Amino acid sequence: MAPATNESHTLPHATPPVITLTTDFGVRDSYVGIMKGVILSICPHARLVDITHAIPPQDVAAAAFQVQAFAPSFPPGTIHLVVVDPGVGSARHALALQTPQACYVGPDNGVFGAMWQAARATHPADAVAAVALQEPRFWLPQVSSTFHGRDIFAPVAAHLACGVALDDLGVRLETVVTLPHTEPVWEHAHRLVGAIIAIDHFGNSITSITSSHLAHLPTPAALTVQVEAANGARHTLHGIYHTYADVAPGAALALVGSTEHLEIAVRNGNASQQLDITTGCRVVVTAESTE
Amino acid sequence: MAPATNESHTLPHATPPVITLTTDFGVRDSYVGIMKGVILSICPHARLVDITHAIPPQDVAAAAFQVQAFAPSFPPGTIHLVVVDPGVGSARHALALQTPQACYVGPDNGVFGAMWQAARATHPADAVAAVALQEPRFWLPQVSSTFHGRDIFAPVAAHLACGVALDDLGVRLETVVTLPHTEPVWEHAHRLVGAIIAIDHFGNSITSITSSHLAHLPTPAALTVQVEAANGARHTLHGIYHTYADVAPGAALALVGSTEHLEIAVRNGNASQQLDITTGCRVVVTAESTE
Amino acid sequence: MAPATNESHTLPHATPPVITLTTDFGVRDSYVGIMKGVILSICPHARLVDITHAIPPQDVAAAAFQVQAFAPSFPPGTIHLVVVDPGVGSARHALALQTPQACYVGPDNGVFGAMWQAARATHPADAVAAVALQEPRFWLPQVSSTFHGRDIFAPVAAHLACGVALDDLGVRLETVVTLPHTEPVWEHAHRLVGAIIAIDHFGNSITSITSSHLAHLPTPAALTVQVEAANGARHTLHGIYHTYADVAPGAALALVGSTEHLEIAVRNGNASQQLDITTGCRVVVTAESTE
Repeated sequence: MAPATNESHTLPHATPPVITLTTDFGVRDSYVGIMKGVILSICPHARLVDITHAIPPQDVAAAAFQVQAFAPSFPPGTIHLVVVDPGVGSARHALALQTPQACYVGPDNGVFGAMWQAARATHPADAVAAVALQEPRFWLPQVSSTFHGRDIFAPVAAHLACGVALDDLGVRLETVVTLPHTEPVWEHAHRLVGAIIAIDHFGNSITSITSSHLAHLPTPAALTVQVEAANGARHTLHGIYHTYADVAPGAALALVGSTEHLEIAVRNGNASQQLDITTGCRVVVTAESTE
Repeated sequence: MAPATNESHTLPHATPPVITLTTDFGVRDSYVGIMKGVILSICPHARLVDITHAIPPQDVAAAAFQVQAFAPSFPPGTIHLVVVDPGVGSARHALALQTPQACYVGPDNGVFGAMWQAARATHPADAVAAVALQEPRFWLPQVSSTFHGRDIFAPVAAHLACGVALDDLGVRLETVVTLPHTEPVWEHAHRLVGAIIAIDHFGNSITSITSSHLAHLPTPAALTVQVEAANGARHTLHGIYHTYADVAPGAALALVGSTEHLEIAVRNGNASQQLDITTGCRVVVTAESTE
Repeated sequence: MAPATNESHTLPHATPPVITLTTDFGVRDSYVGIMKGVILSICPHARLVDITHAIPPQDVAAAAFQVQAFAPSFPPGTIHLVVVDPGVGSARHALALQTPQACYVGPDNGVFGAMWQAARATHPADAVAAVALQEPRFWLPQVSSTFHGRDIFAPVAAHLACGVALDDLGVRLETVVTLPHTEPVWEHAHRLVGAIIAIDHFGNSITSITSSHLAHLPTPAALTVQVEAANGARHTLHGIYHTYADVAPGAALALVGSTEHLEIAVRNGNASQQLDITTGCRVVVTAESTE
C-alpha cells in the first residue's frame, strides 16, 4: 500500500487537496458531474479522483467494502466523498469523519463504520472524530430532499478541502453507524467457515476470509477450500496459491488476493460465471489430514 | 446550486480553467482520451471534468437535457465541450457560445439551444454571443471529416481556456439552432399534460413538468399524477411528495426531483422497469375534486 | 494530431506531468482508484487522465491498438501507464520504455511493441530505450503476486513523473515483446486483403488497411470494398467516402476513419450489428475494372 506517514488531530492536507468520489449514480446521467461542479465552485484547486460510480443502487455494504479497499492507498489528508444514500430525506445523519489518515463525508448509514472502528482501535480517541453535519452555511443555499450529494455532501467535502475545521461543520457524534459483522466462524481449530462478499470485474470471487485468519492454519499448501456454488455444486480446491500463473490456463484456484482476502479465481477466466459463484455463497477452509 | 457571481462580457476564467466533456463516445475506445490529449497539448493547466460519455449515440436531445442539468452547477467561466454530432462532415456550423456564466463549444445542432435562449432572456444582448468557428489556426493542422471533436472542438475549447477571445475564433451568428419545444400543455386550468423526457440510472422517470408549472396548481397533496405506461397500463399516484422516504419501500410516488422536474419514482426500486415507463410516455397532472 | 515538438534523450516533462491510465480493470471495483491513490501518494502534482478501463479482460492486442490510437495526441513527456497483464506473477518482464515523445510503463507482453518499433524506425537508437524494472526502491514496500499495477507499475510511473531517470529503474533491454503482425496482404497490385481489427462504440468496424496502403491504389471512388460478415454474407461497398454525411441515413459505406484506418460504417447506425461484422472478418479492397 501507499506509504502512510501521519499522526495528529488536525487534518494533514495533501497538496493540492484530493477528493475522491464513490457513488451508486452510474455514469449515464450528470449527477456526478453536478457534484464536481459544486466542489470546484467552492474549492477550485481541489483534485478530483473518481473511484467508482457503479456501486449497485442503494448497496451500502458494497460501498463499505470498496472504501476499505481503496482508502489506505491515498495520501494522508485525502477526503473521501461517498454517496450511497437510500435514506436520503429521512432522519439519518449526514456525517463527516476525520482520522489521522483521511476525512470521510457521506450519510451515516454504515458506509464508514469499518473505517471508524479500525481508526478507533489503532489511534488515541482524540485523534478520531465524527460530526453530524448541522451547519447550513457550508451547504448550498437551497437543500433538496432528494440529492444531498449535491446540496450537502459535495459542499462540505469542498469546504474541508479548503481548510474548514471538522468541528465547524456540526456537533460531535459519540459513534457512527456500523454494518452487521460478517466475520468468518471457526467451527474448530482447523475448519473456518466464511462467505463470498464480492465479485470483481474479472469474476474473481472474494471471500470474508483474510490472510490474518489463514495465519492461524497450517501451511497454505495443506489447506482445502470448498465453495458451495449457487447451483448447489461443491467445488473443492486443494492448496492456496500465490498467483494465477501457478496453475494452467482455465484452471480454478484459491489464492490470497491483492486486498489480503482469500479469493476463488480461474486463470485467464471468470470464476463467478464458470463456477456459478455469487455473493453469499458459503466457503469452507479446512486443514487437510489434520491428524 | 453552486453560487454564481458573474457579470461581464469578457470570459471570467475559473482558476485554473475548467473544461467539462460530454459525448456519445462511450468509454470503450480512446476517442475521449484523444480529445483530452489534444486539450492538454494546447493548454497544459486546463482542468478536465468528465460529465458523461454515455449519451445515446447521436441523441442530441438527450445531450441538451444533460447540459441544462449540469451547467448551472459549475463555476463562472467554465468551458463546456459537448460532442454529440450526427452531422459531422455536413454543412452544420461548428459553434462557440459565450454567456456571463459559461462558454459552450460543439456542433450547432440544438445541443446548446436552451442555454442560448435562457441566457438571451436574462442578460443584455451584448453579454451573450455565438460564433461559427472559421479560424483554422485554432484547430489541429489536419482536419478529418469524421472527428471534429479531436480536430476542431477540443482545440478551440483549449484555446478559450488559455485566453483566446471568442471573436477571434470566427464570425458572429445571429442565433443558434434550438430543438423543437416539448412544453407541457394546459388542457384547462386544473389539468396539465406532459411527457417522460428522461429515465435516469435509478429508473426515476423524469417528466417535462417542472415546479414552475406546478406552482399554478393547488397544493401538491391535492394533485393526482397519472402516467400511461408503455404497456398501456395507467398508474395513478395521489399527491406529490417531498422525498422517497415519505412512502414505504417498494411504493411508487411522484415527487419534484433535484433538477426541479416532476419525477415518477419507486422508493428503493426502479420505476422505469417496475411500471414499464419509457421516454415519451404521457403524464397528466390533475387537481383532485376541483369543484 | 497534437503538435509534437520534441527531440532529446532526457524525458521532456509536460508541465505538470501527465500520466494516462489504460486497463482491463473495468470501473465497477476500486482497482483503478487504488492505482491513482498510489500515484498521488508519490507524485502529488501528477495529472491523471483516464483513457479506458474497458479493454476486454487480458486482451493485450486490443490494448496495443488503443495505445497506438491515443498516444500521439498527448504532449511530449506524457507517461502512459497500461496494465493489461494476463501474465502477472509469471516470468514476463515489467517494463518502462522511453521515446522522444513519451514514456510507457506496463508489462512486457506486446502492449508497447508497435510504439517501440515505430520509435526505433524514426529516431536514433540512443533516443529510444527500454528497461526491465528491477529496483524495488521505486515500488511499494510489499509486492503482491496478483496486482503489479498497484505495487510496481503505478509507483514507477509516479517516480518517472517526479523526475527519476529511466536507467535508475532497472537494466536495459535490447528489445521489447511485439505482437504477431497483422499486415494486410497484396494478392496482386490491385487487390489488397485485410481484416477487421476493432469494433468501436458506434459499431464502426475498423480494418487493418490504412490510408498508406490505399495510396498505392487508384482513386478512392474507383475502389470496391468487400467485407465477409460473420454470418457468411458478403457486403460489397462501391467507393471510399470522406464522411458519413456523404451517404443517406441508414446506408452502409467505407471511409478512412479518424486514425487513418479504413472503416466500414452505417450512417447514423451501427455497422457491426446491422451487417454482423466482428473482429477477424476478412476485408478485400479491389480496384474496379482494372483493365
